[in-house]
Amino acid sequence: MARPEDATAIWSIIEPVVRAGETYTLDQDLSEKDALAYWLGPDKETFVTEEDGTILGTYYMRTNQAGGGRHVCNCGFMTSANATGRGVARRMCEHALAHARSRGYRGMQFNFVVSTNERAVRLWQKLGFETIGRLPLAFHHPAHGYVDALVMFRPL
Amino acid sequence: MARPEDATAIWSIIEPVVRAGETYTLDQDLSEKDALAYWLGPDKETFVTEEDGTILGTYYMRTNQAGGGRHVCNCGFMTSANATGRGVARRMCEHALAHARSRGYRGMQFNFVVSTNERAVRLWQKLGFETIGRLPLAFHHPAHGYVDALVMFRPL
Repeated sequence: MARPEDATAIWSIIEPVVRAGETYTLDQDLSEKDALAYWLGPDKETFVTEEDGTILGTYYMRTNQAGGGRHVCNCGFMTSANATGRGVARRMCEHALAHARSRGYRGMQFNFVVSTNERAVRLWQKLGFETIGRLPLAFHHPAHGYVDALVMFRPL
Repeated sequence: MARPEDATAIWSIIEPVVRAGETYTLDQDLSEKDALAYWLGPDKETFVTEEDGTILGTYYMRTNQAGGGRHVCNCGFMTSANATGRGVARRMCEHALAHARSRGYRGMQFNFVVSTNERAVRLWQKLGFETIGRLPLAFHHPAHGYVDALVMFRPL
């Protein structure tokens, strides 16, 4: 679990992702305060992954819907810009799948995977997620314009 | 737009839907206060439809995602139990489609239509929505157990 003193490291991971505006549906000018309030919100469990004392990635898990939908969780993953290609996201997702099972969730859903985020799409597919829906032109990418977003799901 | 004095009528429409737990991912024991805070939240525009001074239905519209996803809206519709089968939901959705266009939205997305809610699914299809995804067993129905939920989308 992330500790309060991890906030600075978490923000250093989140900030470039938010500012780029290419993969998350967050306002590009989101402040540090609002970004951390979102990532560490009371509706979420937030984790960090470390190597030699350095935080390389962070993810959150939350219940995706209330009521009759509360057996499905949702997660968001971010890897430090310095640590891409080293399996950090894969390790976090494997942790998340195990943790979700321990929490009794029966499925994990990604509501909005930007279709141009091919590295993420490939990784989620390798980890057993299926693209169960394609939202037509639902994301405005700063470089590519309107592109599709994917809904991905994995039963647990 | 709903006025503060419409709250009692709105709750009388929402309450049986929430208590039934068959169509919305809201906790079945949601209080009046929390239900109204949800339906009339600051992230939403909320409307009512009246006939001879009686409120027969209510819907909300909100931006479905922030950042690069903010050109797609989301709506929720509820019709009074006394007024089903009279075209209230259809009129509300037609109003919503026009209102969404006037707001500059480029699409409308329903994130979670319970597949057993056949009346709603048929109506949305008639109004131009396509089922772009099926969430496997993502809803626990009080009578039918685990059933699929649909993601429906209509470009504007």
